[in-house]
Amino acid sequence: MPSETIELRGHIIDSLILPKVLDEIITHGGTFKIGEIRIGEGRADQSFARIEVDDPSAEDLDDLILRLRQHGAEVVEKKSAQLAAAPADGVFPEQFYVTTNQQTFVQLDDGEIEVHPALMDSAIVVDPAAKTATATKFYSIKKGQEVVVGHRGIRVVPLQRSTSRADVFEFMASNVSIEKPKTAVIREIAREFKRAHEEKGKILVVAGPAVVHTGAAEHFEKLIGWGYVNLLFAGNALAVHDIENALFGTSLGVYLEKGSLAESGHENHMRAINVIRSAGGIKPAVKSGLLKSGIMYSCVKNNVDYVLAGSIRDDGPLPDVITDALDAQRAMREKLSGVTIAMMMGTMLHSIAVGNLLPATVRTICVDINPGVVTKLADRGTFQAIGLVTDLEPFLRELTDCIGNAR
Amino acid sequence: MPSETIELRGHIIDSLILPKVLDEIITHGGTFKIGEIRIGEGRADQSFARIEVDDPSAEDLDDLILRLRQHGAEVVEKKSAQLAAAPADGVFPEQFYVTTNQQTFVQLDDGEIEVHPALMDSAIVVDPAAKTATATKFYSIKKGQEVVVGHRGIRVVPLQRSTSRADVFEFMASNVSIEKPKTAVIREIAREFKRAHEEKGKILVVAGPAVVHTGAAEHFEKLIGWGYVNLLFAGNALAVHDIENALFGTSLGVYLEKGSLAESGHENHMRAINVIRSAGGIKPAVKSGLLKSGIMYSCVKNNVDYVLAGSIRDDGPLPDVITDALDAQRAMREKLSGVTIAMMMGTMLHSIAVGNLLPATVRTICVDINPGVVTKLADRGTFQAIGLVTDLEPFLRELTDCIGNAR
Amino acid sequence: MPSETIELRGHIIDSLILPKVLDEIITHGGTFKIGEIRIGEGRADQSFARIEVDDPSAEDLDDLILRLRQHGAEVVEKKSAQLAAAPADGVFPEQFYVTTNQQTFVQLDDGEIEVHPALMDSAIVVDPAAKTATATKFYSIKKGQEVVVGHRGIRVVPLQRSTSRADVFEFMASNVSIEKPKTAVIREIAREFKRAHEEKGKILVVAGPAVVHTGAAEHFEKLIGWGYVNLLFAGNALAVHDIENALFGTSLGVYLEKGSLAESGHENHMRAINVIRSAGGIKPAVKSGLLKSGIMYSCVKNNVDYVLAGSIRDDGPLPDVITDALDAQRAMREKLSGVTIAMMMGTMLHSIAVGNLLPATVRTICVDINPGVVTKLADRGTFQAIGLVTDLEPFLRELTDCIGNAR
Amino acid sequence: MPSETIELRGHIIDSLILPKVLDEIITHGGTFKIGEIRIGEGRADQSFARIEVDDPSAEDLDDLILRLRQHGAEVVEKKSAQLAAAPADGVFPEQFYVTTNQQTFVQLDDGEIEVHPALMDSAIVVDPAAKTATATKFYSIKKGQEVVVGHRGIRVVPLQRSTSRADVFEFMASNVSIEKPKTAVIREIAREFKRAHEEKGKILVVAGPAVVHTGAAEHFEKLIGWGYVNLLFAGNALAVHDIENALFGTSLGVYLEKGSLAESGHENHMRAINVIRSAGGIKPAVKSGLLKSGIMYSCVKNNVDYVLAGSIRDDGPLPDVITDALDAQRAMREKLSGVTIAMMMGTMLHSIAVGNLLPATVRTICVDINPGVVTKLADRGTFQAIGLVTDLEPFLRELTDCIGNAR
Repeated sequence: MPSETIELRGHIIDSLILPKVLDEIITHGGTFKIGEIRIGEGRADQSFARIEVDDPSAEDLDDLILRLRQHGAEVVEKKSAQLAAAPADGVFPEQFYVTTNQQTFVQLDDGEIEVHPALMDSAIVVDPAAKTATATKFYSIKKGQEVVVGHRGIRVVPLQRSTSRADVFEFMASNVSIEKPKTAVIREIAREFKRAHEEKGKILVVAGPAVVHTGAAEHFEKLIGWGYVNLLFAGNALAVHDIENALFGTSLGVYLEKGSLAESGHENHMRAINVIRSAGGIKPAVKSGLLKSGIMYSCVKNNVDYVLAGSIRDDGPLPDVITDALDAQRAMREKLSGVTIAMMMGTMLHSIAVGNLLPATVRTICVDINPGVVTKLADRGTFQAIGLVTDLEPFLRELTDCIGNAR
Repeated sequence: MPSETIELRGHIIDSLILPKVLDEIITHGGTFKIGEIRIGEGRADQSFARIEVDDPSAEDLDDLILRLRQHGAEVVEKKSAQLAAAPADGVFPEQFYVTTNQQTFVQLDDGEIEVHPALMDSAIVVDPAAKTATATKFYSIKKGQEVVVGHRGIRVVPLQRSTSRADVFEFMASNVSIEKPKTAVIREIAREFKRAHEEKGKILVVAGPAVVHTGAAEHFEKLIGWGYVNLLFAGNALAVHDIENALFGTSLGVYLEKGSLAESGHENHMRAINVIRSAGGIKPAVKSGLLKSGIMYSCVKNNVDYVLAGSIRDDGPLPDVITDALDAQRAMREKLSGVTIAMMMGTMLHSIAVGNLLPATVRTICVDINPGVVTKLADRGTFQAIGLVTDLEPFLRELTDCIGNAR
Repeated sequence: MPSETIELRGHIIDSLILPKVLDEIITHGGTFKIGEIRIGEGRADQSFARIEVDDPSAEDLDDLILRLRQHGAEVVEKKSAQLAAAPADGVFPEQFYVTTNQQTFVQLDDGEIEVHPALMDSAIVVDPAAKTATATKFYSIKKGQEVVVGHRGIRVVPLQRSTSRADVFEFMASNVSIEKPKTAVIREIAREFKRAHEEKGKILVVAGPAVVHTGAAEHFEKLIGWGYVNLLFAGNALAVHDIENALFGTSLGVYLEKGSLAESGHENHMRAINVIRSAGGIKPAVKSGLLKSGIMYSCVKNNVDYVLAGSIRDDGPLPDVITDALDAQRAMREKLSGVTIAMMMGTMLHSIAVGNLLPATVRTICVDINPGVVTKLADRGTFQAIGLVTDLEPFLRELTDCIGNAR
Repeated sequence: MPSETIELRGHIIDSLILPKVLDEIITHGGTFKIGEIRIGEGRADQSFARIEVDDPSAEDLDDLILRLRQHGAEVVEKKSAQLAAAPADGVFPEQFYVTTNQQTFVQLDDGEIEVHPALMDSAIVVDPAAKTATATKFYSIKKGQEVVVGHRGIRVVPLQRSTSRADVFEFMASNVSIEKPKTAVIREIAREFKRAHEEKGKILVVAGPAVVHTGAAEHFEKLIGWGYVNLLFAGNALAVHDIENALFGTSLGVYLEKGSLAESGHENHMRAINVIRSAGGIKPAVKSGLLKSGIMYSCVKNNVDYVLAGSIRDDGPLPDVITDALDAQRAMREKLSGVTIAMMMGTMLHSIAVGNLLPATVRTICVDINPGVVTKLADRGTFQAIGLVTDLEPFLRELTDCIGNAR
């Protein structure tokens, strides 16, 4: 019977890796013998297991081993990854290996190299000469590049739960309950922000227009002013609503201060777009003194980098908007390096798009009043995502208060 | 062709009553001639219309007139209401008139009398000697009582939009949008509370356990302490969660301060019930010093009347809970007189139950993070309901701040 | 250092019991040594582990052992449970043990006995003479009864995942996704119904008025007629809507056939109640020929037992409704014995109430168009609940078709 | 005091236009005298009112008249529209008139011309020589083009409720209730489809990937095959899921037939993209026999035109996807002419985008299991939108059955 020996290392008990591996083996028709098992006695101690896996068919065994690798299993005698050339620009070879957002290594003949970036739903382009392995999207692949095919020689290192329970990302894990008290969680998030700020980590905020609708722009502006936002990803709508608010005091014709409808209110939205188009963009409008407040103004004044990605429901759009979806993806990916925290607020489209681009190690906070959105975003199978079902304005007010008090 | 002449009076144009009436006539196969129309020129002026309604059949005409009465139409020559005796205890005569929650009058031979209370889904019991007309529920009717049957002699006065736009209940009318800024609306609600407080109106709060879960109990206690809550309707769950929080610092085993799970957490819920059962109820527990804080404690200390209504999903329940649904309805109805504002938070069951007992004149505020609940409660066809889709803790915090600042 | 030795038996690896136990120990400040571990090689093989648990304080160790017992850990040298007398009717002794819905055993001096029923949130009343242990609700406890206090001598046997993956309850585990195809799942549910039917299992349906509103009553009637519903739990609303539909063709005034509003529609609701009150109840109304179709009619005709539990938002109610919450709970509990499948449709109140009364072994199917309701019901920590977010009418139509085709 | 005389014509009573107009006048500080009022006696008769409107300031009067025009008010002595030149490519002159999706006319010196298309959130470009008035988006305006500024000379003809109640779009008006029976409504929608089909109207379907996830693709394919879909707007996701299903029987790795997870399931999604990219697009893949079933296959085989619009969350994308948002908007607008029915299913992004491009006269059906989406789409202030909160698979199954039975 075909068999392979795998090894598991790390917090394989309390990260539930060992039982998942045994479960996979049995579920997929294999059998196992545990050759050796050493279970760390303390929480900080690593455990180790060596397991012989048998399967009636060699093909099924390959499949099974592939699945076990996703849990961090290493095959004792490693074989090199197989490579094949991309048959055309924008096309991967058949049987290309599909990446996850976890740390991944490729075994080549002369050693193992790490894949960069940790980008999901890509293929791995290997340059044996340069000793690089690059996660590559469909739209970037060039004919003839060497791409990993099959699953041999791939090692995935799943994110392991840290041994300290100190932080909110572990404590909360996937907790999106509407009914929980949020004050304690917001306090923890504030602490994470401050830690990231002190350690020069990059904080990315992904924001939808609800930040403006709900009247939360002023809090957000404070965060930007204090240096707690290092990168903003949004769409045309956020920027237009923000600028409409800055220029006319309304958002889609609703006076945010008074909560009442403006005369001719809906026109303000269109006029705000026209003002910025006429000025040639947001930065020129800030420079010329046309735009004197708001989120976008604060970004420009504080040199916060932003990407505005277009969508088919945009009005205008503003000149700053990248209307091509692939160009927008590229622009976002380029700026992501160094991001340690991503906070996503009030937008499903942009949040999912950004979520697809983030490595598993980035700590992600998803805030939305719609539990469906939070569930979709928070439930990404890592220990690193917090979901909060709450109203954006009070959330941002409290977060800003917490950070402000501690400055 | 059978015909009747009706008259409309009041703000029949800007309350859209006239067009609705004409629309009903045409829709139901009738025709009309407008005998006279006087449209008030200013917003404060009343308008008047006299309309002759024709219908091919006398029976259809009766049906039609009935519908027009719901819009406030008066038949020029009024006929007395028809009465019939209840055939048994708890049973109405066939064709009993079903009340709405609007102000209603019954024409008797010797004049018109108003129906009390303005209670929907009831029959009207007339006592001709005492000259009273009483909206009566199924469970209160006694054999032989005189009940209005058919629609003749009934006049309904629909709530008319006031001519000033001063208040938030008119401005907001049915506005449950998630995306609107709430700060302005909360400020207005605070103003309504203060007005009611100064004018000795009664403020009713209907609250679900989410008030405690979300950590909002402390704000609610302040409102009670300041005298801004005059009546509390809730279920066993609110009281138990509140008392668990007061005794153990947890709510369903979650430490509200820290947001973390308590050891043996879920047991606290059951132990809290046992403590109060052992003490003989909430008031004895307050008196004996066992219960020293929380919403229920504040109610007892500030002499705020409360009704705790039971439901089949209750644990315990506490000795204070009225476990019979009809007894609970009766207890609530008895205390409702004088209520001018009802604020419903975080409970669909209790909010709908109370909504069914309220006259149309009571101003109603519905707050829930679930838009479905708010829609169901706010959309009651009056100008008097505000719905807010938001998180309870920040809502109550802000409301309390607004009221506190102005004291 | 205080220490105890525990043993784990069963599918402790693939049911994730072992890692959870080790995790609990570490998390709560203990340490462990694994004395012996035998891991079953095949899926059907049981595993075994003996673990020595140490904790700095004896009290903490007790607490910890208690938690481990919830995972099925047995203490090697078992001590008898401690008992204390109930201090008053309706009051448990302090430190009473709070039950779960899992199979539970109590160690007495002369052996271990099982607790009946497997009812959560109760205390355990022991009758040493009769050798019985009874899960008892607050409202049933009598002064002087012997109640288990503390956690010593209690053994909980958590539901273990069966080794075959044959059935939909394991496959689906907690799957409430809106986006999944339901046809396959409905087919599996139909198969479960047929299996239960053949094996003389009892099928309980808990239903809200949406079954009638959505036009699904006719499918439900078929299921009743075929003998696939053995017990119906519902509220006044389901019965009234059903009877309104049977008598007038409307549900809250909407003609279900045509989807259009009835003239004087809302009155039908009240008239339906009056008809049944006048007849003296549902059964007399069926007998006298007044009620000739519908869900309630079908129950009466097919001798399907039903409990209608009252709530404070009821109109009427019908004479059959049990208006006292505790009486209703008791009535439901009495009928639950023998139930193997519970299907809950379109009601949060009744579904949660019934869920609290069910042993963990009953297979539960929750169907609602509101994902919040399904999540709340399906997520009960067992392998035995399926949640479906879908529309009731097409769900019941398809289920009925599947069952019908195979009869 | 400045004054203007306006005239209202049409079903101004039963479309509630007259009272709304009077209400606007009073609300905005004006006063009115009704010079003449003639109310049509039958439902089919038109009514007429001539009203003199006074306002303290000329500017306010202008503002007011502008608002009244939105209700169809005509100023008795019409003035020509004011024009101004666009100052730059992509920029409108200040004070440009913002269009609605209603039928609109512009008064020029030598007569009135209609604006084409009836496209909201655009400016009106007038070519006096060619006597054309064109609703123009920001991205299409060229420097120097003549654009209407201010509100003078604009007449909007709001959609009037037809005098027959025959059709479901009027009957249902904004009815998105979860609790209503849908069978009757689906039957009516089927009738509308058949009518449109017979009258050579164009049926547009806007579809999200949930059509595939929920297993509804087979029904949709039937509709396409029968000629009941003339145009498909969707995103990359719908097409990829459909093709994954066609090639591998899975959708995001879930076997739709069996509802179970596929081995290596998620990879199928990426492989499906690669297959089509490799083939050079959907049409080549159909031609070469690679793609043999599914929605996209059926579109190609039946010559149904489609637009696949890109978004930033796309994987791939397929070569057929238009990745630039403005190009995609343009492509959709070009194909919209002649569309009489638009059915939107399971996508908020695409549905809102398309809704923004549709004239008010297109009958719109929005189907989604999320009530939030349906509310947002259905509530567009016309009589022409139906919203259904239901599951896509049974909806499409029943619609297909209804249409199929009647063919």
